[in-house]
Amino acid sequence: MEPTDRLKREAANAAVDRFVESGATLGLGSGTTSAFVVQRIGEKLAAGELRGVRGVPTSEGTAALAREAGIPLVGLSEARPTLTLDGADEIGPRLATIKGLGGALLREKIVAAASLDGLVLVADGSKAVDTLGTRGPLPVEVDPFGWEATFEALASLGCEPRLRMDRAEPGRPFVTDGGHYTADCAFGPIQDPPTLEAAIKNIPGALECGLFIGLARAAVIADQNGVRTIET
Amino acid sequence: MEPTDRLKREAANAAVDRFVESGATLGLGSGTTSAFVVQRIGEKLAAGELRGVRGVPTSEGTAALAREAGIPLVGLSEARPTLTLDGADEIGPRLATIKGLGGALLREKIVAAASLDGLVLVADGSKAVDTLGTRGPLPVEVDPFGWEATFEALASLGCEPRLRMDRAEPGRPFVTDGGHYTADCAFGPIQDPPTLEAAIKNIPGALECGLFIGLARAAVIADQNGVRTIET
Repeated sequence: MEPTDRLKREAANAAVDRFVESGATLGLGSGTTSAFVVQRIGEKLAAGELRGVRGVPTSEGTAALAREAGIPLVGLSEARPTLTLDGADEIGPRLATIKGLGGALLREKIVAAASLDGLVLVADGSKAVDTLGTRGPLPVEVDPFGWEATFEALASLGCEPRLRMDRAEPGRPFVTDGGHYTADCAFGPIQDPPTLEAAIKNIPGALECGLFIGLARAAVIADQNGVRTIET
Repeated sequence: MEPTDRLKREAANAAVDRFVESGATLGLGSGTTSAFVVQRIGEKLAAGELRGVRGVPTSEGTAALAREAGIPLVGLSEARPTLTLDGADEIGPRLATIKGLGGALLREKIVAAASLDGLVLVADGSKAVDTLGTRGPLPVEVDPFGWEATFEALASLGCEPRLRMDRAEPGRPFVTDGGHYTADCAFGPIQDPPTLEAAIKNIPGALECGLFIGLARAAVIADQNGVRTIET
């Protein structure tokens, strides 16, 4: 196992052990760290250490992993999550976060916002930053209709948006589970996340942006020195 | 012809005669009034009174009408509209507008925002209001994923959102060309449209709202006293 994967798993295990109780309905994020969360929950259900936990998946991929792990699934139509556990691409001051490199940001944001007790971030230490925007681009979910015009409007905010391409089908845009495109927007350091988020969301066709502000109540972060939990 | 249809046609004819020039690339709205706009443009192209006009349609329905009327079509990928002509459900102070009863608000807003010279509204006099929100609900385009949670969040802003149903297929939600649902939100009189718009767009899953603020440069309105043009 890669060292980073080991840290992701440590953080996932610690987050599940601390925040997941029997009977909980859990929003399940998408991406590599969330996969370790799903795995741990499945193990604890199998071992009888947890009972009656159900999952609300944020992507088809996570739904498949959760079924494999033996976690019963429900949709937002049937139940509201008590809590959501999800990874992050960058975790900044006051747990403001960038998400979306995994390609599921709109559904992740819908599930996180619908969670009664909010969002718990799970990450390896490389994701913790002093200023958001310093590790990678900010993903923005974009309607395919007129995407070129939407990209121009995003560019006018001070970035060069790149259309994310499908890894499996070269030459074709990546399409989210909801049928949308993704613009990866390298803004550089983001000094004022709420203002940038509002400006992005003001663009018709920019359906959701990867800035998650005020949604996380805690972050469980693992690095070489161990696991630490930050709470807001 | 119904009296209201007569007024819509008068407004459409006046708007085309005044604002559409040969060689223009025109955003074409959706709905009954836009159908009269499309018809007039087609007639003027056929009569040789206009040449080289192309249309950027905001819905499959408008695309079909424009083809019938003999207007060549292009997408936003190929060309940016010089101007968009579109109907409105309500036209308020400073040409702030409610749109979306026709079911195409996201694409209409994308095309209007992409138009170099902005949006010209076309309407019968019944659409002019002192305060937005007084004639009907505010439509909001919503992602189908977790729509119930999104509706709860909309309700918390002070309305009872109704899921728009398909007229052709009873019991099934109406689905936009982009694959989304529509929430019809009766807020009552909207005293501060920009603040409400920002609050709605802050809800993950509320992809776009029917408030069009700062997009219209003119409105052509027909009533029993004739046709008047309001410019910002």
